Amino acid sequence: MFEARIHVMLKKVILDPQGKAVKNGLLAMGYDCVDDLRVGKYLVLTLNTADRAKADREVREMCDRLLSNPVIEEYNYDLQEVAP
Amino acid sequence: MFEARIHVMLKKVILDPQGKAVKNGLLAMGYDCVDDLRVGKYLVLTLNTADRAKADREVREMCDRLLSNPVIEEYNYDLQEVAP
Repeated sequence: MFEARIHVMLKKVILDPQGKAVKNGLLAMGYDCVDDLRVGKYLVLTLNTADRAKADREVREMCDRLLSNPVIEEYNYDLQEVAP
Repeated sequence: MFEARIHVMLKKVILDPQGKAVKNGLLAMGYDCVDDLRVGKYLVLTLNTADRAKADREVREMCDRLLSNPVIEEYNYDLQEVAP
């Protein structure tokens, strides 16, 4: 059994209106030292397989096909074996 | 200057309909080995201060007050110094 921890973020060249809104909220609350804020997704995916190569291949495929939008987002993940 | 990488997830006891929907999507696409999937937020926050204690205190406060909903979510973060 493997667990993939996946981070999906907008590419740096893409404006992040959600991050901007949250940043403005924090500044309005008095947190003057906030310089930049970007918001992304974090997915924790458990895979029921003992084959690391298969798990790795499938996670990559799932990220490309459904979990991220490769046009505007980039992703990375790490994969670790967990007890069933 | 510090960078905080913040993960916000629904507490384990709280149902995650978004995770469930994405999991069903993956199963429908043929990824039979998907066992569990939970979706959270990932925030990358840059703080314009040289004081680690202040940065740490403010990140914790921001998480408690705005970035997470302590009733249903839990968060963790790591803080590292970055070049300005």
